[in-house]
Amino acid sequence: MSIELGDNRYGKAEVRLFTVTRDGARHELTDLNVSIALSGEFEATHLTGDNAQVLPTDTQKNTVYAFAKEHGVGQIEAFGLLLARHFVTSHGPTRQARVHIAEYGWARLQLPAGAAPHSFARTGPEVRTAEVIITRDADPVVISGISGLVLLNSTGSEFHGFATDRYTTLPETTDRVLATEVSARWRHQPGRDQVDWRTSFDETRRHLLEAFAETHSLSLQQTLYAMGERVLQQRAEIAEVRLVLPNRHHLLVDLRPFGLSNDNEVFYPSDRPHGLIEGTVRRTGVAESDLAW
Amino acid sequence: MSIELGDNRYGKAEVRLFTVTRDGARHELTDLNVSIALSGEFEATHLTGDNAQVLPTDTQKNTVYAFAKEHGVGQIEAFGLLLARHFVTSHGPTRQARVHIAEYGWARLQLPAGAAPHSFARTGPEVRTAEVIITRDADPVVISGISGLVLLNSTGSEFHGFATDRYTTLPETTDRVLATEVSARWRHQPGRDQVDWRTSFDETRRHLLEAFAETHSLSLQQTLYAMGERVLQQRAEIAEVRLVLPNRHHLLVDLRPFGLSNDNEVFYPSDRPHGLIEGTVRRTGVAESDLAW
Amino acid sequence: MSIELGDNRYGKAEVRLFTVTRDGARHELTDLNVSIALSGEFEATHLTGDNAQVLPTDTQKNTVYAFAKEHGVGQIEAFGLLLARHFVTSHGPTRQARVHIAEYGWARLQLPAGAAPHSFARTGPEVRTAEVIITRDADPVVISGISGLVLLNSTGSEFHGFATDRYTTLPETTDRVLATEVSARWRHQPGRDQVDWRTSFDETRRHLLEAFAETHSLSLQQTLYAMGERVLQQRAEIAEVRLVLPNRHHLLVDLRPFGLSNDNEVFYPSDRPHGLIEGTVRRTGVAESDLAW
Amino acid sequence: MSIELGDNRYGKAEVRLFTVTRDGARHELTDLNVSIALSGEFEATHLTGDNAQVLPTDTQKNTVYAFAKEHGVGQIEAFGLLLARHFVTSHGPTRQARVHIAEYGWARLQLPAGAAPHSFARTGPEVRTAEVIITRDADPVVISGISGLVLLNSTGSEFHGFATDRYTTLPETTDRVLATEVSARWRHQPGRDQVDWRTSFDETRRHLLEAFAETHSLSLQQTLYAMGERVLQQRAEIAEVRLVLPNRHHLLVDLRPFGLSNDNEVFYPSDRPHGLIEGTVRRTGVAESDLAW
Repeated sequence: MSIELGDNRYGKAEVRLFTVTRDGARHELTDLNVSIALSGEFEATHLTGDNAQVLPTDTQKNTVYAFAKEHGVGQIEAFGLLLARHFVTSHGPTRQARVHIAEYGWARLQLPAGAAPHSFARTGPEVRTAEVIITRDADPVVISGISGLVLLNSTGSEFHGFATDRYTTLPETTDRVLATEVSARWRHQPGRDQVDWRTSFDETRRHLLEAFAETHSLSLQQTLYAMGERVLQQRAEIAEVRLVLPNRHHLLVDLRPFGLSNDNEVFYPSDRPHGLIEGTVRRTGVAESDLAW
Repeated sequence: MSIELGDNRYGKAEVRLFTVTRDGARHELTDLNVSIALSGEFEATHLTGDNAQVLPTDTQKNTVYAFAKEHGVGQIEAFGLLLARHFVTSHGPTRQARVHIAEYGWARLQLPAGAAPHSFARTGPEVRTAEVIITRDADPVVISGISGLVLLNSTGSEFHGFATDRYTTLPETTDRVLATEVSARWRHQPGRDQVDWRTSFDETRRHLLEAFAETHSLSLQQTLYAMGERVLQQRAEIAEVRLVLPNRHHLLVDLRPFGLSNDNEVFYPSDRPHGLIEGTVRRTGVAESDLAW
Repeated sequence: MSIELGDNRYGKAEVRLFTVTRDGARHELTDLNVSIALSGEFEATHLTGDNAQVLPTDTQKNTVYAFAKEHGVGQIEAFGLLLARHFVTSHGPTRQARVHIAEYGWARLQLPAGAAPHSFARTGPEVRTAEVIITRDADPVVISGISGLVLLNSTGSEFHGFATDRYTTLPETTDRVLATEVSARWRHQPGRDQVDWRTSFDETRRHLLEAFAETHSLSLQQTLYAMGERVLQQRAEIAEVRLVLPNRHHLLVDLRPFGLSNDNEVFYPSDRPHGLIEGTVRRTGVAESDLAW
Repeated sequence: MSIELGDNRYGKAEVRLFTVTRDGARHELTDLNVSIALSGEFEATHLTGDNAQVLPTDTQKNTVYAFAKEHGVGQIEAFGLLLARHFVTSHGPTRQARVHIAEYGWARLQLPAGAAPHSFARTGPEVRTAEVIITRDADPVVISGISGLVLLNSTGSEFHGFATDRYTTLPETTDRVLATEVSARWRHQPGRDQVDWRTSFDETRRHLLEAFAETHSLSLQQTLYAMGERVLQQRAEIAEVRLVLPNRHHLLVDLRPFGLSNDNEVFYPSDRPHGLIEGTVRRTGVAESDLAW
């Protein structure tokens, strides 16, 4: 019996980057959290502590800041591609570079005289994300996404006709509150790395929201599929959509002990446990990525 | 030497309440986190475990849900007054009731056909707050507030001319990024509990934002005072403003090792440590509240 | 009507300090989170942005690191006294300095050959705390404490005989799980700043735990008082104990729908809402601190 | 072009379960967080909202509580196997069930008279974990693990001889603090589901700690490999070990501006960014699991 090194990667996580771009008195911001992971010929450091192949994670951090100055940030998918390509092409042992970027939103303050030129407030809780995977001699993989987007329909949601066993006590309902915190990631078609990322993101986000709002839901799974399907129907540049949708239960409070009715008016939003619905919607026949993403 | 019970209070914390109000197909939401604390003649339970004076915290929770149905929620200051008065008037041993409410924001989704009637997204990270203190035989105290409001000026902020000692290394600056997460609470004039809370909150929030944006800042303390002063100048119903402003440092990255300049373009937003500026701005001569709030 | 500056303070929060002390091959660690707040003659910076009285918060941070080297850290009460005195005595405008320190625990790893000389694991979740308040021309105030200490009695707790109203549904119980996360702070007698802080902390912690375990509880309030009383009976150096005890409800799961009984065996530990019991136990006649602590 | 459903699963997440077992006056506790995910023939609910194949997540939650009573909890790997097998065998559409369990630690309080029979304190921050995957007509997969285990060596760690490029500024070091928060998961040999889980966990944990402490480290990667290798050398029941080791940088504070030296005594533990080292160590030739775990 012998022992060996299996899959491995290393990098710098959570490099916080904030940039200000000036157009005269009017400023633009970007506010990012960048994480890098490299894999390749890194056996030696594991087996003997020989670091000759190891580009320090501190250098990776420095690269993020230097590239922000040298190239600007722009759209996070493009910035991720720039960074990931750099590591694969400039550092020989790197077979694959993954760059994950979260972008925090800021909105310009409105003042009596109009939009403030250099004053902003954080928006949220929603965060825009991008993950870029560059592998030597392979097509780039670009995955855009969104997380922390909390959506709720106060009607138009049912849940009944489900399977039961001896542990089932849930009553059927034809009208419930449906709430979730959307984590969505969508993989772009292989070979397309010149997408108008801004428009692609904005439109995909819009379709996700519209599908959530417009789907009369018999299950959160049905809503999930409708959201993914809508994106694929509307955005030709996207190959696949993955959604993680916790079911944030809003439980009807029993007011009968107080002589009161409760016609879907008063709810207790519970923290735990929660349902968790995960699924992928994809184009038939599109080449799968062999990457667990 | 003898031992005695000093200040004490008890209650239910973090009662999550979500309500849906219907105006035909169009729904309105409220999403609250309510905490209650009662003080009064509660020595017996501490000294002997005699609970005859103790209204269970579970009952306090039930009261929140029942009142939401019986009276509606409306503005959180009004709902807090209703709850706090109830405990002081209905439960004899209660000398004082404090009700703290946090309100989470939801925005109606926009669809191609217009505003969605019953679909919403959480806004934030900002939270609206209210604290109401009802004391037997005393004026009610109403404190409105806001927390989690992250603001940033990308220029118009300086810091120089400060005191130094042998441990000082900070360079002076005439142009820095100024960022903070505003926690603001403002106490309403005593005896005014019929305020238009919605307008009062919206306008106070607007003045805080405008003062932050419009103040050319020589220190975060100066900005703090300007924010409080503006509110008091503009809103006669408010007696006092308390602000807690962490200074979220955005540190300029040194790009010289890479042969690059950095003209206030590339920053590292640091998490810890942070400056912390706290202060009260008040009307001269207004009766102080004897409550630590 | 005029407007004025009320209470205010400023400082550096969350200065993380980690030190290694060597006794030959055997190392000792301290791992602290230090926060400083100064108040005094700081009107000018608020009103005009004149910073001549302002010792930068960056300097306060530097002082923490320099003092760790110059004086060592030792017990956190002593380190807090050293820092707080420094600011009041060395920086004229400072009338009062508050230093809050949280200390994270580390345990030496056990190896086959015995205790590891320089390898450690974090303990917790419990954290030791100290707050020191030095005011010009006044006695120092030293408050030791503990937070994050989660305790549970699986029997020996009852709750009945409580007040009821039309919103009460809670059943009485003579056997429940009692769980809480202890936040305790104890103020030392004025004028005692040469205490053996290590022993004082260890013994106070031990008495809190023993009182929790040994009190047959008719209410969490009764347990709170018993914990504070025990400390004051046993530790002459302590004037006052403040306890904040959330009641972490462990709700009995109703298994009857599955044809099963539940004799205090299977529980659901709920997150929210929770009861919150707060109280002070003090020596009769001891001079009160006029500080809200 | 057509659109289809890809990988999907659903279940109940974060079912909190607390049990008390009595042996006379002496009690034993278990405190778990259980998450369940089912995959199989669940297309219909996604495509049409037909829920006939869907066992509600609420039923899954109920099953956790009922099984705790009917079978007891015991070791979390065994409880996970019981639950996962139940869903695959009792609910036809379920092709695969994954059960993830986190177990929180409690220590018996020590009293003057000895160990308390029913009083406990939470330990931590470390958490024991298990993941069980039961797939119809396949061997069970059992993965034990640990998370939140924070380890530190105050010497015996070097980092030098690394690759450099134009963005490298990191100095080499022959003596640094090495700190990490261990997330380790180890897959048991296929077909072994009658392991003495308690002993297996305790011994594996011990070997991880000893390898961390005893490895003179030239890189965190080397330490990672040594930890995995030691486990495989010592525990025949384990096929593969996966480790995620953030490098929690402890940065030496520059005290020279204050005329002070710093001989590895005073550090600033930084939060972000951090290095992140991930790797698998496995037995050569052991059948790989085709599951992304």
